[in-house]
Amino acid sequence: MRNSTSASQVTRNKPDKPTQTPNNLNTEATDNHTMTKVSIIIGSKSDTELGEKAAQILEEFNVPHELNVISAHRNPQKLTHHIKHSDADLYICIAGLAAALPGAVAAQTIKPVIGVPKDVKLGGLDSLLSIVQMPTGVPVATVAIDGARNAALLAVEILALSDKRLEEKLHEYREKR
Amino acid sequence: MRNSTSASQVTRNKPDKPTQTPNNLNTEATDNHTMTKVSIIIGSKSDTELGEKAAQILEEFNVPHELNVISAHRNPQKLTHHIKHSDADLYICIAGLAAALPGAVAAQTIKPVIGVPKDVKLGGLDSLLSIVQMPTGVPVATVAIDGARNAALLAVEILALSDKRLEEKLHEYREKR
Amino acid sequence: MRNSTSASQVTRNKPDKPTQTPNNLNTEATDNHTMTKVSIIIGSKSDTELGEKAAQILEEFNVPHELNVISAHRNPQKLTHHIKHSDADLYICIAGLAAALPGAVAAQTIKPVIGVPKDVKLGGLDSLLSIVQMPTGVPVATVAIDGARNAALLAVEILALSDKRLEEKLHEYREKR
Amino acid sequence: MRNSTSASQVTRNKPDKPTQTPNNLNTEATDNHTMTKVSIIIGSKSDTELGEKAAQILEEFNVPHELNVISAHRNPQKLTHHIKHSDADLYICIAGLAAALPGAVAAQTIKPVIGVPKDVKLGGLDSLLSIVQMPTGVPVATVAIDGARNAALLAVEILALSDKRLEEKLHEYREKR
Amino acid sequence: MRNSTSASQVTRNKPDKPTQTPNNLNTEATDNHTMTKVSIIIGSKSDTELGEKAAQILEEFNVPHELNVISAHRNPQKLTHHIKHSDADLYICIAGLAAALPGAVAAQTIKPVIGVPKDVKLGGLDSLLSIVQMPTGVPVATVAIDGARNAALLAVEILALSDKRLEEKLHEYREKR
Amino acid sequence: MRNSTSASQVTRNKPDKPTQTPNNLNTEATDNHTMTKVSIIIGSKSDTELGEKAAQILEEFNVPHELNVISAHRNPQKLTHHIKHSDADLYICIAGLAAALPGAVAAQTIKPVIGVPKDVKLGGLDSLLSIVQMPTGVPVATVAIDGARNAALLAVEILALSDKRLEEKLHEYREKR
Amino acid sequence: MRNSTSASQVTRNKPDKPTQTPNNLNTEATDNHTMTKVSIIIGSKSDTELGEKAAQILEEFNVPHELNVISAHRNPQKLTHHIKHSDADLYICIAGLAAALPGAVAAQTIKPVIGVPKDVKLGGLDSLLSIVQMPTGVPVATVAIDGARNAALLAVEILALSDKRLEEKLHEYREKR
Amino acid sequence: MRNSTSASQVTRNKPDKPTQTPNNLNTEATDNHTMTKVSIIIGSKSDTELGEKAAQILEEFNVPHELNVISAHRNPQKLTHHIKHSDADLYICIAGLAAALPGAVAAQTIKPVIGVPKDVKLGGLDSLLSIVQMPTGVPVATVAIDGARNAALLAVEILALSDKRLEEKLHEYREKR
Repeated sequence: MRNSTSASQVTRNKPDKPTQTPNNLNTEATDNHTMTKVSIIIGSKSDTELGEKAAQILEEFNVPHELNVISAHRNPQKLTHHIKHSDADLYICIAGLAAALPGAVAAQTIKPVIGVPKDVKLGGLDSLLSIVQMPTGVPVATVAIDGARNAALLAVEILALSDKRLEEKLHEYREKR
Repeated sequence: MRNSTSASQVTRNKPDKPTQTPNNLNTEATDNHTMTKVSIIIGSKSDTELGEKAAQILEEFNVPHELNVISAHRNPQKLTHHIKHSDADLYICIAGLAAALPGAVAAQTIKPVIGVPKDVKLGGLDSLLSIVQMPTGVPVATVAIDGARNAALLAVEILALSDKRLEEKLHEYREKR
Repeated sequence: MRNSTSASQVTRNKPDKPTQTPNNLNTEATDNHTMTKVSIIIGSKSDTELGEKAAQILEEFNVPHELNVISAHRNPQKLTHHIKHSDADLYICIAGLAAALPGAVAAQTIKPVIGVPKDVKLGGLDSLLSIVQMPTGVPVATVAIDGARNAALLAVEILALSDKRLEEKLHEYREKR
Repeated sequence: MRNSTSASQVTRNKPDKPTQTPNNLNTEATDNHTMTKVSIIIGSKSDTELGEKAAQILEEFNVPHELNVISAHRNPQKLTHHIKHSDADLYICIAGLAAALPGAVAAQTIKPVIGVPKDVKLGGLDSLLSIVQMPTGVPVATVAIDGARNAALLAVEILALSDKRLEEKLHEYREKR
Repeated sequence: MRNSTSASQVTRNKPDKPTQTPNNLNTEATDNHTMTKVSIIIGSKSDTELGEKAAQILEEFNVPHELNVISAHRNPQKLTHHIKHSDADLYICIAGLAAALPGAVAAQTIKPVIGVPKDVKLGGLDSLLSIVQMPTGVPVATVAIDGARNAALLAVEILALSDKRLEEKLHEYREKR
Repeated sequence: MRNSTSASQVTRNKPDKPTQTPNNLNTEATDNHTMTKVSIIIGSKSDTELGEKAAQILEEFNVPHELNVISAHRNPQKLTHHIKHSDADLYICIAGLAAALPGAVAAQTIKPVIGVPKDVKLGGLDSLLSIVQMPTGVPVATVAIDGARNAALLAVEILALSDKRLEEKLHEYREKR
Repeated sequence: MRNSTSASQVTRNKPDKPTQTPNNLNTEATDNHTMTKVSIIIGSKSDTELGEKAAQILEEFNVPHELNVISAHRNPQKLTHHIKHSDADLYICIAGLAAALPGAVAAQTIKPVIGVPKDVKLGGLDSLLSIVQMPTGVPVATVAIDGARNAALLAVEILALSDKRLEEKLHEYREKR
Repeated sequence: MRNSTSASQVTRNKPDKPTQTPNNLNTEATDNHTMTKVSIIIGSKSDTELGEKAAQILEEFNVPHELNVISAHRNPQKLTHHIKHSDADLYICIAGLAAALPGAVAAQTIKPVIGVPKDVKLGGLDSLLSIVQMPTGVPVATVAIDGARNAALLAVEILALSDKRLEEKLHEYREKR
């Protein structure tokens, strides 16, 4: 297990580490990913609220996760580095406008990538199309505009395929609704 | 293992059963799902070509799958019956227009559901929005308009999370490109 | 006549039952439909305002109706149960986003179904297309985005075909405008 | 019963009159409407194919109907005259572009009006919005772009509310699908 | 010259009649059109602000005009009556949603009709398409969404073709800008 | 009257000059505009078919007109020169894509300018919005996408305001339809 | 070097002239362009905020620039005069609605023209399409809706091709992000 | 100067190297960029025709260029390698669908990047928005859908800022039009 030295990252539900508050959110993404199941990446600090919504659902399901701010367009190398050193099973990528983030992650991993379009301009249509219209070979699992919570639920559904506890929790979650 | 008695269903890569040709495609969906990993459902016979594209990718990866024609709007009970008796790990649902199929399946299972919008009218925009804009609680993993192949690749990525062989195959597949 | 035991449902203009206030609106839809002419179904509690607008018009025309909250995506079985036990002549279904509700009802009844798209995202375009673009065989009578009042007027027009009193009232209503 | 003198109109399933072929379609709309249940109006001769699709469904259900070509923009007085003398229970109006026809009919009758947008330009989006976005007070029951068959089925659903034979036929029709 | 007896109409710049204030705006359109050059018709009271913007420009150019509220969908006969008795040289029709008003006027006159789409829903796209996409034979001169002032300037340009004074004023107006 | 020396221009219905065939269409616009009532300008040779449709209507009404190819983007000075020396009463400008032509003409004249959007990309939506969404002060009378014939009819309606013969012809034209 | 006499123009970073405050912004564009590298033109005073955002970036990079208000539609001759006398290396043109400004400038210069669509109506889609869909021969380098800062950065990138100091500054700027 | 050893790349107008035919187009991008001024990158072999259109214009202007096929989504490392070793002054990136290529290049260089959206689905609207809606900090100079020739002309305009010969040629080119 790689050692966690940076406190700048929002990491939750990991064995040896207290959940950090959203206020701790830091744009300096680091590579200490210890047993993270889901890596949430937001393209800009302004996407924090959506990122937190996804994190909250994962929290409810006790799925270890982390939340980092890495722009595909402004920090491409940081993104490459992050993906290379991530031990996440899947990614949730949230971005607005010409939202290249989910596709850029999908291009560098064979793990499932869930994309969340964000409404910044044009009602989010630009972001939706930038995320969902991926070319053959590199899929992104796109959810609704601003649908961060559904992205997390989709992640839980995927992880539940090999985790009976999550499967049960999902059934409970559905029934409560 | 439930016994397969109907030949009308397109089922592939299952232990005791030869792959059926697309010509065998039948609208009479049955419930004999033996060890199916991925259940491909198309909303109409006219979606067969797209369904076959998804099936072909799963074929390449030796993922057991089946292909059925069930309309969410014309056969809602058949759909409910199919989902209830399916042992699939995940669903690929392909539909055009007011494409309710993926959402209708997602509403009745906690397995991941991948939605493929089909271009029938308006360039497929109607179908895309009908599939991707799901309300909180019931996610559908949407791929590109007519993106049946990517739907299958996304399914493989998801299954590869707990299948080392698939993971390796995915790496090979990516490298060949 | 089935006996009404639940107070949670908004039912109006029925012989033995006082009109309930919108505050009584309850998400626990029940099956006590006594001589309801029009069944208004909203996909989410947040659609209550629109549902009430439709109810108000029916109120003006003294058309027995009820208003229930049932999501096609979150409570598909409740919806099936509701339709099966409903004695309504027609349905008004109000929903936003990937609005599957009107189509899901239409798929399970041969009664006329009126769909009301709600503007939640994209100006309501997603909802409009999800409702109106139904495949051949299962029509939904779609009205304008947020057009709940027109949905109720359309319901009255339909009921007036075999109800002289309603026909006269409609003529009066038009003349007042 | 008003006497039918003109052969130019496509009238079907009426007691004393043989069904006319589509070739007989005439732009000279007349007012001899004998026991017509459904009045199909197309905005232009070029909409004949769609009009015939609606007529065919009504034919299957033995619903007396007629098909006339009257443009809301080019023959407003003829339209007014036609509506005033029509004994139809409801209208199916098919039009493309700035499709004012359904709304113009709805403005002059309290009978239910079903609107069918036709794809002429912009994938039919112009026509859809021109038909569905009616102001409060004058609803039009809009179906899918080019959805003439569903318009007819919706008409049958409405007429079936007071016609047991049609209700049974609708059940049969659904089951066959 | 027909005699003006009703005060309910907003008529301006006419020889024998004081300009009425917008507060006098009345929905009871009458037929006393005395030497009106431009007839502004708004489809709903809620369009008054836009109507006034057009009126204000005509005021500046001393063009006799009047402003009436007549809905094509709610008062089709009133509209027909108004057009038949109008002595206006041209019409400015302002309407939102499924904006049939400009087309309905154009269908009943050979005078130039200027249409102003109003943003009520979908950013005004529905209204724009409903107004501009007229079929061959019945043109509507469409201006920008909410472009009431430009509608009036276009009217002045048209009238200036046979009015030297207006032509000069237009030149001055342009130069001041 | 300025003398016509160039044969390269398509000029029709002028006293001393035979109507030229479309084959004579020339991109070398000249300034010999003798008693032209309507100046049709197309933005590119590829718009000739639409330009001819407008010309044909003007032909039917015996309205002197000419047809020139001048791109606002490629020949701005030629356009300025053309407008300055034109004696046309109004302009019909046909252009696709980022269709600046109608607005560019409107910016340089106080004569009415009719804009015809052409479908080259995106169904003509780009062209429609580029033409109709003019800022306050410089109106363009926009007609339907590819609506060249309606542009000509609108021109005739405008000219008919001070030409009894045209007014009568318009009435005849409408009646024939 | 032409002599600067007018104070009405916002000119910055020029040797002999103090930077003017945005409050000095004047619509009376003049032709005293002394060693301006980038000419920012806004189509209307209401675009000043966007214009200032572009200016601010150029300020940061010490690129001599000026900001003028010239409407392509309302001041075409002023625009022509401005371009003819400008010594700018490139242009940033900001405009909303039927945004002809960038194309009008591009039509009159061979210098690179950067277009910034502004969201005034329809989320800025009208403006985006009016700017980006230029015909072959006259390109406009279009940036995002309301993307004035990126327009300035693009200008700096272009100037940096022949200016080592700017190139270094750009590298620093990117690294700081 | 790095030595050119690979023939697989389409490189043109370089001192020591014959122009290669389009048939030689190779997806194996290499890093031997000798004095390339413009690097054209297409996201897929199917974009070759558009790539060639851009190349042809550069050919006309004798601008050294090369054309490579590198997908941002399928070969992200190859893209990074290509950019790192490129000596191009600017890039022309052509891509369809969720067109991340131009943004991905812009993210890794401070050279100007010109993006060309390609119409594959939705009329190219998805591609246009994916390219033009870049976040602040990383601009892409976007041209029209399928506007490859204009991309090349824009590149020439940019290079002409420090190349008198190109400037003259551009003037000639414009005059010929």
